[in-house]
Amino acid sequence: MQSFRELSRLFEERTFAQQFPEKPERLYQAAEYILSLGGKKIRPVLVLMANQLFGNLNSNSFYAANAIELFHNFTLIHDDIMDRAPVRRSKPTVHKKFDEPTALLAGDVMLVKAYEELNKIDINFLHEIFELFNKTAKEVCEGQQLDLDFEKRETVSMDEYLEMISLKTSVLVGCCLQMGAILGGAGKGTQQHLYNFGKNLGIAFQIQDDYLDAFGDTEKTGKTAGGDILANKKTCLYLHALENADKTDRNYLIKAYSGEGDADKINKVLSLFKKYNSDEWVGELKQKYYETAIHHLNETAVISKNKEQLFHFAAQLMQREF
Amino acid sequence: MQSFRELSRLFEERTFAQQFPEKPERLYQAAEYILSLGGKKIRPVLVLMANQLFGNLNSNSFYAANAIELFHNFTLIHDDIMDRAPVRRSKPTVHKKFDEPTALLAGDVMLVKAYEELNKIDINFLHEIFELFNKTAKEVCEGQQLDLDFEKRETVSMDEYLEMISLKTSVLVGCCLQMGAILGGAGKGTQQHLYNFGKNLGIAFQIQDDYLDAFGDTEKTGKTAGGDILANKKTCLYLHALENADKTDRNYLIKAYSGEGDADKINKVLSLFKKYNSDEWVGELKQKYYETAIHHLNETAVISKNKEQLFHFAAQLMQREF
Repeated sequence: MQSFRELSRLFEERTFAQQFPEKPERLYQAAEYILSLGGKKIRPVLVLMANQLFGNLNSNSFYAANAIELFHNFTLIHDDIMDRAPVRRSKPTVHKKFDEPTALLAGDVMLVKAYEELNKIDINFLHEIFELFNKTAKEVCEGQQLDLDFEKRETVSMDEYLEMISLKTSVLVGCCLQMGAILGGAGKGTQQHLYNFGKNLGIAFQIQDDYLDAFGDTEKTGKTAGGDILANKKTCLYLHALENADKTDRNYLIKAYSGEGDADKINKVLSLFKKYNSDEWVGELKQKYYETAIHHLNETAVISKNKEQLFHFAAQLMQREF
Repeated sequence: MQSFRELSRLFEERTFAQQFPEKPERLYQAAEYILSLGGKKIRPVLVLMANQLFGNLNSNSFYAANAIELFHNFTLIHDDIMDRAPVRRSKPTVHKKFDEPTALLAGDVMLVKAYEELNKIDINFLHEIFELFNKTAKEVCEGQQLDLDFEKRETVSMDEYLEMISLKTSVLVGCCLQMGAILGGAGKGTQQHLYNFGKNLGIAFQIQDDYLDAFGDTEKTGKTAGGDILANKKTCLYLHALENADKTDRNYLIKAYSGEGDADKINKVLSLFKKYNSDEWVGELKQKYYETAIHHLNETAVISKNKEQLFHFAAQLMQREF
């Protein structure tokens, strides 16, 4: 079996060359630009790791992995337009570097290119792969819409929030795992366990992301401490605190999250998160999803030795050493 | 064989019911909204007409037809965002009725839904259909990018312009015809002639559209006379006049097309189009593409009787009685 690093290198080698034609220049430069920003390529490598659970790597997996990476970058471009985000991976976002129409179109063409990659897969897998990919792609759009909707609402329930992060970010992780399984010739039950491993791990990761934004070591995360609080993002910490706060604190939170941010606001909100044990509660919630993920990996019917890599990957992800 | 009207009714019946889930409400309301604005459904009906050249309608054609219609509407939503267009088919555009992020996402989800429809097609056609659709979808994005690029450039050659309209609007017409042919079991040569029939007819139609915007009977076209001139759109009339104008007229045209519009500008530009015989030249150009289209339909190896419908359709389209 090949390591994460080896698989990542193999994937980079296969996709290093320019993926798009030269003309129209502006359109394809924008598409190449976002791909050049790097990133850890976790999603495509997960396709490959899931696939090698079942033996030697099926070369079709590289097409699936590339399609997933293209799809992921398509969502980044369009999300950044919607969020009016100026920076991505310490560089200007595509619509800042180029312009909004070009960014919009570059996203579109990357989604089409993802389908083009999938269409290189052997015909006997094609229908099943497309079905999974289409379902996932629709869900990711739905998750983004829910995220947009929630910004405008004063109250969001924890269940709604978890549904949103599941759709927006975690089903794609499940999809990566299941694609690898499909191309490994796995049956429906095994596919489903791997899908659920990925999806629950994705949710746990997202919850951890909320936690680290507020309480993480800024040197390790590379983020501004309390960035979500400044941006009035209704994370699970906020929603838990809001649900449990007394009237005064609740009113403060609602007011604080509808106005401008300052350093004092960050400290005050953080102290409320602590006061209502939201930090502990969120830690337990993450652990619950992580254990569900591990349960599904245990239930996956492949030999134990082959699964060690994914167990290790999951554990590392939860320590954010990755 | 079934008439255009019958095929249009059959298509409407099959796609009348709500195509999207109920939630998230805002996302799918936006998608249903653009579909509810009507339109002549020329593209999906062309898939069906091309298919019945080869005998009874293959029921897979309805999936292909629906995919094409969804794709077309996806491009309308995104183009309207890029062009900041407030009105489409006499109604507010999607981003005006909802908001830009919702419109962007609704477009995305409609493109995914188009692929979902294609994935219902029999497995033995799947790879070929996807290949054609992906190629076309990429070209349409490229055409839109060229259109955006041309807006910012002072000079555009006639060849560049024809390439742009071909990609932006006409390859999709070719794709409709070829999809019908593929699902009718046609060989590559026959597919190609039908594709070229559609593509050239599409170009002829687009050239006619430029002509009618300037010189058409506003009662028949339902458009503002000289709308393209007011909007500084570099149509083939403009490009021909510019190429042939003397220095004074050329300077006037360039200046007029970089500023605001008024009624006097329309009249002056129209008189220059006449002075340099751009109206006649454009009429001949349209005729050239129309004849190329007809040539390819003649070369299509199906019995003549079956082709009558498409000959009739093409002739009507050129008279804009449709």
